[in-house]
Amino acid sequence: MASAATNRTGITKSRLETFSDGVLAIVITLLVIEIRPPEVGAGETLAEALWDHWPSYLAYFLAFAQIGVIWLNHHRLFDQVRSVDGPLLLLNLNLLMWIALIPFPTAVVADNLQEGGASAETAVALFSGLLVINAISFTGLYAWITHDARLVHELPPRDVVRAARIRFGIGLGFYSLAFAISFAAPYVALVMHALSAGYYAFDQATLQSSPAD
Amino acid sequence: MASAATNRTGITKSRLETFSDGVLAIVITLLVIEIRPPEVGAGETLAEALWDHWPSYLAYFLAFAQIGVIWLNHHRLFDQVRSVDGPLLLLNLNLLMWIALIPFPTAVVADNLQEGGASAETAVALFSGLLVINAISFTGLYAWITHDARLVHELPPRDVVRAARIRFGIGLGFYSLAFAISFAAPYVALVMHALSAGYYAFDQATLQSSPAD
Amino acid sequence: MASAATNRTGITKSRLETFSDGVLAIVITLLVIEIRPPEVGAGETLAEALWDHWPSYLAYFLAFAQIGVIWLNHHRLFDQVRSVDGPLLLLNLNLLMWIALIPFPTAVVADNLQEGGASAETAVALFSGLLVINAISFTGLYAWITHDARLVHELPPRDVVRAARIRFGIGLGFYSLAFAISFAAPYVALVMHALSAGYYAFDQATLQSSPAD
Amino acid sequence: MASAATNRTGITKSRLETFSDGVLAIVITLLVIEIRPPEVGAGETLAEALWDHWPSYLAYFLAFAQIGVIWLNHHRLFDQVRSVDGPLLLLNLNLLMWIALIPFPTAVVADNLQEGGASAETAVALFSGLLVINAISFTGLYAWITHDARLVHELPPRDVVRAARIRFGIGLGFYSLAFAISFAAPYVALVMHALSAGYYAFDQATLQSSPAD
Repeated sequence: MASAATNRTGITKSRLETFSDGVLAIVITLLVIEIRPPEVGAGETLAEALWDHWPSYLAYFLAFAQIGVIWLNHHRLFDQVRSVDGPLLLLNLNLLMWIALIPFPTAVVADNLQEGGASAETAVALFSGLLVINAISFTGLYAWITHDARLVHELPPRDVVRAARIRFGIGLGFYSLAFAISFAAPYVALVMHALSAGYYAFDQATLQSSPAD
Repeated sequence: MASAATNRTGITKSRLETFSDGVLAIVITLLVIEIRPPEVGAGETLAEALWDHWPSYLAYFLAFAQIGVIWLNHHRLFDQVRSVDGPLLLLNLNLLMWIALIPFPTAVVADNLQEGGASAETAVALFSGLLVINAISFTGLYAWITHDARLVHELPPRDVVRAARIRFGIGLGFYSLAFAISFAAPYVALVMHALSAGYYAFDQATLQSSPAD
Repeated sequence: MASAATNRTGITKSRLETFSDGVLAIVITLLVIEIRPPEVGAGETLAEALWDHWPSYLAYFLAFAQIGVIWLNHHRLFDQVRSVDGPLLLLNLNLLMWIALIPFPTAVVADNLQEGGASAETAVALFSGLLVINAISFTGLYAWITHDARLVHELPPRDVVRAARIRFGIGLGFYSLAFAISFAAPYVALVMHALSAGYYAFDQATLQSSPAD
Repeated sequence: MASAATNRTGITKSRLETFSDGVLAIVITLLVIEIRPPEVGAGETLAEALWDHWPSYLAYFLAFAQIGVIWLNHHRLFDQVRSVDGPLLLLNLNLLMWIALIPFPTAVVADNLQEGGASAETAVALFSGLLVINAISFTGLYAWITHDARLVHELPPRDVVRAARIRFGIGLGFYSLAFAISFAAPYVALVMHALSAGYYAFDQATLQSSPAD
């Protein structure tokens, strides 16, 4: 049943997807453990202490949205994939390595946003910078998958690939811009991240239904 | 095999279920890490210190029951789904975002219930409020899935849908009532959450067996 | 494809197994986060600080072995299951609720075993007591599944069921004995837990190979 | 459908893989929670505090690479497996037990590398020692799977098995050497771990594509 070629790689597409989905489900769920129950100070109510932690909630929603968008795009990409080779495995592991890091800058933003000044800028720049690296890693994966016809069911038409590349370039440029802006106006950068997630969400929302497999 | 329509969305029903199940399994299991081993004070035995932490255990069981019930209902709902579209993906991600938050108010209840007064009320209101948002998110998902015949195997008969909507309305009303009561009588609200989980459990227990797939 | 009966329960056997496997995989992996890197005191080497934490490692291995054994037995049981009904769903969720708690007494044992005296006894009794509850929950699940022929591929022969019930009784008695002994000789109780895991492991090791599905 | 032999073991290959993949996905994702947001001291910027934590990031990448490599090799091995017996189950659980421990020495390295001297040596030796145990556990699993023809689709040719054994021996020797070197030159040992992961990555990258299953 298993051909010699399968035996050589040993990882099939469905296993790669299962493992990637597992990592994505875990990392998106782990975000919550960075939101700690507040210590209530003297002369403070619990409600006030909870309000004071708003950057934790903001960071949770922003990071959840980014990881959700990565999950949507990851599946959409792999839907076209027919077979798996060594570089694809490594490029996918590389992407997962950067995705799995997201809870760390999320917690740094939660801890430092209220400080303002250089602390807030550094925290948001760390978050934005990691998203830039994620965008680069995703682009690398896409480029490898579509660089010739071996790995896909059917190589998309040349103009579709070109459109996708332009799209990836714009995404990458947008994240890079948010990274640069983090050093001057961290809140603007956070709004940009919310907008990028909203854009991808709107993009998905306009898709038509697909039959269940 | 994969039609053009499938390629456009890229997420099939089974993958959506697998991802949702992953998030639910993780969040229900993460609840335990909010129960910390107690620090034993001077002149106190470990047994006493363990008893003192009863709100942690209570919060664990209540949250576990609520997430368990969400899992049961989520599967029951998706059993009827035939195909997946963009808004369904987003409504499901939205639901998961609120489910994944549950360990946070669970920990806040565990930390503050014994304080009594405003602290206990605020903590239970936070927990109850999140359950209200979960109920709204679930209702939104149900409404989208059943709003026309495109996404389901077979649109349930009109009276079944009407009965389900009444049921959702009652559930939402019950959670909202528990939320309101939290501000006056937090223990009553917690009893209401236990009752709602018990109701759904009894409801499931009366179901007949289904053949394995 | 989905019969009316399936629609009524909405959870099929394979989804129940996937969810259960997810919870078991997560809880067995979460055990490690209870082992904290040691604080190195003044005039102490890191190696000494690491040795001092031996109860953490012992607790990790004991808990891992118990959860591993539960996973083996859970799969062995569900291999006979043909269909799923409401009570089975609830009995399985009940079992998962107690399994998911295991990291908590594991951490309590790790923190208190070296104290000796009442602290060690209480900690080990908590761990042993949870295993008793797990054994009861597992026995309840088994009893429901085999109480008539509706849920299984084929009801095992009467003497096989009787042998299994005796076996469950012995297991339950052994865990209960370990619980009782915890209050007098906690280390003896821990040795009993190691022995029970070893017994199940030996029991599995004598099984013959089965074809891949 | 299920033969008597299947019923006796109750765990099929696909379930064993799913459970193993679950544990691997969780442990690789849990690594991030060992990277804590830094406490910013007086007269220090957040950026400086973040730089100071470089051993955390280094430890994350090294551990991620090692677990990634284990995942690749685990799948490659199980691709040849046809059926599962008791000892294989136990040898696999044993391997998972050591893999799931990896976040612990990773955190110890992160906490102690900057101390230098005996602390750094002990920390890296703990990390290296665990990798040696992992290599031994993996070798044991491989040896059992290939020791006769019962468990595999087709026993690999004698020279392939011999080559694989030599390869495992070299891997084991390399990890053991890194362990020994840890006590004298911890940074050299860490470089060796990076090289071993890089070697396996290069090895995978040269594989040809396999058709999707």
